[in-house]
Amino acid sequence: MSSIFSKIIRGDIPVFKVAEDEFHLAFLDIFPLAKGHVLVIPKKEIDYIFDIESDEYLQLWQFAQKIAKGMDSVIKCARIGVAVIGLEIPHAHIHLVPLQKVSDINFDRPKLKFSDDEMEAVMKLIRSAI
Amino acid sequence: MSSIFSKIIRGDIPVFKVAEDEFHLAFLDIFPLAKGHVLVIPKKEIDYIFDIESDEYLQLWQFAQKIAKGMDSVIKCARIGVAVIGLEIPHAHIHLVPLQKVSDINFDRPKLKFSDDEMEAVMKLIRSAI
Repeated sequence: MSSIFSKIIRGDIPVFKVAEDEFHLAFLDIFPLAKGHVLVIPKKEIDYIFDIESDEYLQLWQFAQKIAKGMDSVIKCARIGVAVIGLEIPHAHIHLVPLQKVSDINFDRPKLKFSDDEMEAVMKLIRSAI
Repeated sequence: MSSIFSKIIRGDIPVFKVAEDEFHLAFLDIFPLAKGHVLVIPKKEIDYIFDIESDEYLQLWQFAQKIAKGMDSVIKCARIGVAVIGLEIPHAHIHLVPLQKVSDINFDRPKLKFSDDEMEAVMKLIRSAI
C-alpha cells in the first residue's frame, strides 16, 4: 500500500539515509526513541512483514543484520534492539534501536528530537560503518 | 551462554511449547504482554541475535515467520508484533506478541498472568495452526 515510505523510496521526501540496495532502504527515524534509531524497509509496498514472500522476507532480515552490526560498531549502546509493530504506517518496517535498558524501546514514551546537524552526524557515523 | 533457556531446551523446565524443530523452539512467555505471547529461540546458546552466523540467523527468522503465521490464523489480533531486546536473558530470543495497539508491546507494562488451563488452551490453539 502506498504510504509516506513510498514517497521516501521515490526520493520525494528527504531522509537521513544510512544504507540502500536494490530492494531495501535504511534511514534514521525522525521520531527516534534513541539517537541512531534506524528504520529498515523493503522497497516493495507490503503492509505486513509476515506477508512478505519467504525469500524477500529473509533478504530484509539479512539487510537488517548488516545495518545493526554497523550501528553496533559505532554507537555507544548495550546492543541494538529490534521492533516490528506496523499498526501506524501500512508499509513493513523494522525498527533498529540502540539500547541501554529495556525501556529504551518503549514506543509509548515521548519521542526524542535531535537537530538536523545531530541527525546528519549520526547518519554519517552509521554509514561509515556499513 | 547457559541460561534458563538452556534448561528449557534440555527439558529440565517445563514450558507451554508451541513448536520445535532440530534447531529452534517456540513456547509461551510465562510473563506475557498478551494472551498467546510466544518466545522463539535458537537451540544453540548465543546471547546476541546479530552475532548469530548469517545462515542460522536467517533460519531463526524463517522459523519465526512460520510461528507468526500460525498465531495470526487463530488469535484475534490486528497483527503479530516482533521485539528483540535481550538485555535480561543472555540467550537470543524473539518475542512474537499478538497486538491490537502499539502499547500492547510495551515491556514496561505490568505483565499479564493466565491460569495453566488458559495457557494450555492457547498453546494447543497455536499448535493446531502451525
